[in-house]
Amino acid sequence: MNQEAQPDAPLLLQTRDAHGVVTLTLNRPRQFNALSEAMLDALQRALEAIAVDESVRVVILGGAGPAFCAGHDLKEMRAAPSLTYYQTLFAQCSRLMLTIQRLPQPVIARVHGLATAAGCQLVAMCDLAVAADVARFAVSGINYGLFCATPSVALGRNVSRKQAMEMLLTGEFIDANTARERGLVNRVVSLDKLDDELGALARTICAKPAVAVAAGKGLFYRQLETGIEAAYQLAGQTMACNMMAGDALEGVQAFIEKRPPHWSRD
Amino acid sequence: MNQEAQPDAPLLLQTRDAHGVVTLTLNRPRQFNALSEAMLDALQRALEAIAVDESVRVVILGGAGPAFCAGHDLKEMRAAPSLTYYQTLFAQCSRLMLTIQRLPQPVIARVHGLATAAGCQLVAMCDLAVAADVARFAVSGINYGLFCATPSVALGRNVSRKQAMEMLLTGEFIDANTARERGLVNRVVSLDKLDDELGALARTICAKPAVAVAAGKGLFYRQLETGIEAAYQLAGQTMACNMMAGDALEGVQAFIEKRPPHWSRD
Amino acid sequence: MNQEAQPDAPLLLQTRDAHGVVTLTLNRPRQFNALSEAMLDALQRALEAIAVDESVRVVILGGAGPAFCAGHDLKEMRAAPSLTYYQTLFAQCSRLMLTIQRLPQPVIARVHGLATAAGCQLVAMCDLAVAADVARFAVSGINYGLFCATPSVALGRNVSRKQAMEMLLTGEFIDANTARERGLVNRVVSLDKLDDELGALARTICAKPAVAVAAGKGLFYRQLETGIEAAYQLAGQTMACNMMAGDALEGVQAFIEKRPPHWSRD
Repeated sequence: MNQEAQPDAPLLLQTRDAHGVVTLTLNRPRQFNALSEAMLDALQRALEAIAVDESVRVVILGGAGPAFCAGHDLKEMRAAPSLTYYQTLFAQCSRLMLTIQRLPQPVIARVHGLATAAGCQLVAMCDLAVAADVARFAVSGINYGLFCATPSVALGRNVSRKQAMEMLLTGEFIDANTARERGLVNRVVSLDKLDDELGALARTICAKPAVAVAAGKGLFYRQLETGIEAAYQLAGQTMACNMMAGDALEGVQAFIEKRPPHWSRD
Repeated sequence: MNQEAQPDAPLLLQTRDAHGVVTLTLNRPRQFNALSEAMLDALQRALEAIAVDESVRVVILGGAGPAFCAGHDLKEMRAAPSLTYYQTLFAQCSRLMLTIQRLPQPVIARVHGLATAAGCQLVAMCDLAVAADVARFAVSGINYGLFCATPSVALGRNVSRKQAMEMLLTGEFIDANTARERGLVNRVVSLDKLDDELGALARTICAKPAVAVAAGKGLFYRQLETGIEAAYQLAGQTMACNMMAGDALEGVQAFIEKRPPHWSRD
Repeated sequence: MNQEAQPDAPLLLQTRDAHGVVTLTLNRPRQFNALSEAMLDALQRALEAIAVDESVRVVILGGAGPAFCAGHDLKEMRAAPSLTYYQTLFAQCSRLMLTIQRLPQPVIARVHGLATAAGCQLVAMCDLAVAADVARFAVSGINYGLFCATPSVALGRNVSRKQAMEMLLTGEFIDANTARERGLVNRVVSLDKLDDELGALARTICAKPAVAVAAGKGLFYRQLETGIEAAYQLAGQTMACNMMAGDALEGVQAFIEKRPPHWSRD
């Protein structure tokens, strides 16, 4: 299935630092990190393992080589022209995308280069994204006759609908600063400062209690999908439970005493 | 009903170019293209005919004279003060607005001048909008005691809620660049370049397969109205079906062979 | 419960001008106007009285002292560590937030300084917000181990989700101009011009018929929570009823006759 030049190189690189930051790196550089079935599977398995690993605090998702990710593996797709195959493939990919959103840990996209089609969708599904100023973004499937329908789910929840529609109908690129202005990425820096910026952002989040981060991330996406009254009910429950956690009681006490808090898992 | 100076001039002009781009032009220039019942009816009939005409690829919607569109025809409205009349009128107008969104072909607003009330709503309901830098936008009904409720449906789905609320409560104008920054229009150019910009944008879309454009446009608005899990199910189905279309198989093959695609309807 | 230095000073100041503009000022300056139970109760009662007072046209909500509002009263919260207590507290606060949105009159936040946690939520829930350029905004609960869940309901309906998530996960501040670009506030001026700007905005709204403003505000938030077809049905009904009101008939007639309208309650 995977026709890499280096068959023994792992599809997905994984490193972990002392703060609990895991970096996942898509590793099909010659194929612009195309999301083959094997790559989708590798990412799914890696995220499922991270979801139950309390020592992981933040995930950074990047790509090896010149591109962040160019979307699905078109050669693989072209080789298997059946409706059932495509239904299964897009279901697998959508499951991965929802796994990112449902992961207890925040996921930050590290976008150093091109992010197209399902690669742009990956950026949109991450909780946060930091881009190099040379990065570019497109949902370009329409250029080869395939409207980026599943990417539009994520893109349409990041940027305004006319901006999304223009990208989807024209397949044209936007640059990193435009992506930031529209809400697709949070921060843009020069390429040589990209890892410093990501490290600083990740460590800021590592300094917060994991239980509050996990409960809050989950609540945020759930409440966006309901009416505002139900949203407040969900959020009030989350916050009351959060207040009963030891870390919140310590954090509030530390705030009152004007001293740094000591979290239970520090 | 229609008290134009030139009773024989059509309310709605229609032209078509060699690429399949139809331009509809509201033609009540002295009334700032007010949406009389007859005008709403003419637009409805024109769009319904376009919806089933596969030779039409893109629709451009503009206005003759100094304004794009100043909204409802207040003289006509004032002459018929009954609740049933107004209910029927707003239902007719809302049906037209939804027809734009449900049209298989993308609709691009050509905003060369003032767009107010239901005229601003028309811009907001189009899939894309290109404005001249002299264009201005307002939902100004509140100035004559009539909150722009139906325009707020469209505006509130284009710009952020505080920005929409300010326009709705004050009736004040925003200029074209502000409209672009907020997501109400896609591009702003000088008036003398407006048609070049529109032509380029329309031809870019004409170069994509119509079946992918139509399926994608429909999917985009449907999935925005559901939760993200249902959205991915809808989008995955759309994309799997799209992949089975001849144009997508050809497009992907052309992409792999690094050659231009040949679409079935070229 | 309230341990102010001046126990007899009211928690909430209220003034009214000749145009029907009521200014509510949170008055716990030394506590950065923290939302104690007593403060939440005072605000709730004041808004409920305003809701049925037709002479009030616009509400401005501000804070005394250096801050706009620093959110919940952490000392009070820390003193009562029971799940039931917190559930009741957040339900009380959420009820207040929904009361702002459901008030017939528009509510404008006057943000002259820091707005954090539930203070930032107050800004987000107001219909409009005007900020001094020195104002700063954060949802900083995560810094003391308490994810700003209920503020995220309001913030996530004002700014794009990645921007909201960054503020929620990092607890970091954004400045007033960033808040304006993202949609959290409408206008930013220097501190010495803040009240002039607020006064001009409030008087602009006072010049519109109250019945149209109230019906329109209510409709706007209701229709945002439904699909677009149901939204148009709601909006069409609102607009038809609005047209039957005397003020709309007068307003439209005045527009046709090119004269200023005379509203029934002027």
